[in-house]
Amino acid sequence: MSSKRFSGVLAPVITPFDSDLTPDAERLVRHCQWLLSQGAGLAVFGTNSEANSLSLEERITLLDALIAGGIPPERLMPGTGGCALPEVIRLTRHAVSLGCGGSLMLPPFYYKGVSDDGLFAFFSAVIEGVGDAALRLYLYHIPQVTQVPLSLALIERLLARYPDTIAGIKDSSGDWNTTLALNSQGWDDFRVFCGSESFLLRNMLAGGAGCISATANVNPGPIHSLFKHYQDSDADARQAGLDQIRLIFQKYPMIPALKAATADYGNDPDWCRVRPPIMPLTSDHLAGLRADLAAAGFSMPGL
Amino acid sequence: MSSKRFSGVLAPVITPFDSDLTPDAERLVRHCQWLLSQGAGLAVFGTNSEANSLSLEERITLLDALIAGGIPPERLMPGTGGCALPEVIRLTRHAVSLGCGGSLMLPPFYYKGVSDDGLFAFFSAVIEGVGDAALRLYLYHIPQVTQVPLSLALIERLLARYPDTIAGIKDSSGDWNTTLALNSQGWDDFRVFCGSESFLLRNMLAGGAGCISATANVNPGPIHSLFKHYQDSDADARQAGLDQIRLIFQKYPMIPALKAATADYGNDPDWCRVRPPIMPLTSDHLAGLRADLAAAGFSMPGL
Repeated sequence: MSSKRFSGVLAPVITPFDSDLTPDAERLVRHCQWLLSQGAGLAVFGTNSEANSLSLEERITLLDALIAGGIPPERLMPGTGGCALPEVIRLTRHAVSLGCGGSLMLPPFYYKGVSDDGLFAFFSAVIEGVGDAALRLYLYHIPQVTQVPLSLALIERLLARYPDTIAGIKDSSGDWNTTLALNSQGWDDFRVFCGSESFLLRNMLAGGAGCISATANVNPGPIHSLFKHYQDSDADARQAGLDQIRLIFQKYPMIPALKAATADYGNDPDWCRVRPPIMPLTSDHLAGLRADLAAAGFSMPGL
Repeated sequence: MSSKRFSGVLAPVITPFDSDLTPDAERLVRHCQWLLSQGAGLAVFGTNSEANSLSLEERITLLDALIAGGIPPERLMPGTGGCALPEVIRLTRHAVSLGCGGSLMLPPFYYKGVSDDGLFAFFSAVIEGVGDAALRLYLYHIPQVTQVPLSLALIERLLARYPDTIAGIKDSSGDWNTTLALNSQGWDDFRVFCGSESFLLRNMLAGGAGCISATANVNPGPIHSLFKHYQDSDADARQAGLDQIRLIFQKYPMIPALKAATADYGNDPDWCRVRPPIMPLTSDHLAGLRADLAAAGFSMPGL
């Protein structure tokens, strides 16, 4: 892996499916190329990638296809977490071997009420099981989905033991006080990404590293521009523009809404497919999303 | 699979690990043989089996080892659920091909707030993906862990579409009103298992099929006796005896407590190993469990 840590805007890249709901590697490579062209990095296999609906073999195959398709591995931060230790080790090791810039790591999310000792043991077993000094882990805090929060005390303990490996965190809690606290610990070069661009300006001003956001799949250029220009006088206006688009997508089920917009603006209806238990947008939702985006003058240039 | 539906007492069989935390198939076969000797069926790969901490390959290998070890497949109800559709189909199909009496199926548990339509689509895709009339599915309702409840409306819809396949449910909600409601729908030959023997007598009197309970790993004989004798005059006394033991185990983290008791009463300390994020009992908990079980005159005859 690259020793350089991530900063900027990353998209948890949506995953396209064929008509039989197998992942479509070619279409994924094309979407990643477009995202890169807009300045976004690639957090493939995130929550909005339906990654936990993919088999381990499917994720390995897609990662190989991305590299074979010319995606620079240092721009990839694949989600490699899961519940089963051997699978997490295998996928993470594979990402390291391909030169990926980092791994985004969920806690094991089946058992609830697990102790910090148990989570520390899990992450330690992953790091030691991978056994490669090139590994860079970005922890993934999304308690409303996992129901397994990552405490400051746990992160501090991991940093003390693995200072070179634990590189940062994605905070998808939606709670600004948590993001602020993560930025205020004085941890050396610890990269804090907010999980929505709604917090991007505040996160940058607090010393954060950027954002990893669902809507970076559809609005990467303007989000990246705020990241670059957050100290400019028009930063508040840029943030307001991002918020307007974000709020539209938040009115609808996020994953099928991202896919529907990608299908519409790229003139590629196959993008609408999702894997159960996620469902496509209802026709009412689809009509509403289209009207809202048109009214906002939304576009996906170059798609 | 056997066309006969399950009834009685099943244990979500605890999973033994070697010193490197790989599953120990030989020790698992021995524990299953003991459980069978006590009258219990085998819900391997349940929550208390740490099944979601096992890789797909480990579960396939263990299932093969159980059959090779002489365990009658019709007594096996492996947990074959998960988040990723292709893996759920593969493991369930494997269980059917081995002649397992049924599969216990979690809903996909990563995404929260999914619709009944999404869950129906998921279970339908599993059933049609397996594509074998011998499949018998027992749904697994454990909302405090999955955070994905299974509604009566969803079950009714599945039964209408797949009346021969949907064979029953394990209700681990701990909410008696839910168990009662499941027994009161008039669904033809739908087998309702409570998730704790604390509800066994009530469940049997309400028309239920039995229980699938963590503590059936350690107290299978007396639980099976209540199942057989629930209409006898001493049924309340039997239930009280079961409750006493159950309440002891509930004072401690369940999985390591079950393993510690198995280690102690079988004189086999290797049973204590758990996989992260589950942790072994603390020494205080271990001492407390031992004292409580001794005071209750607990035993595991024949182990």
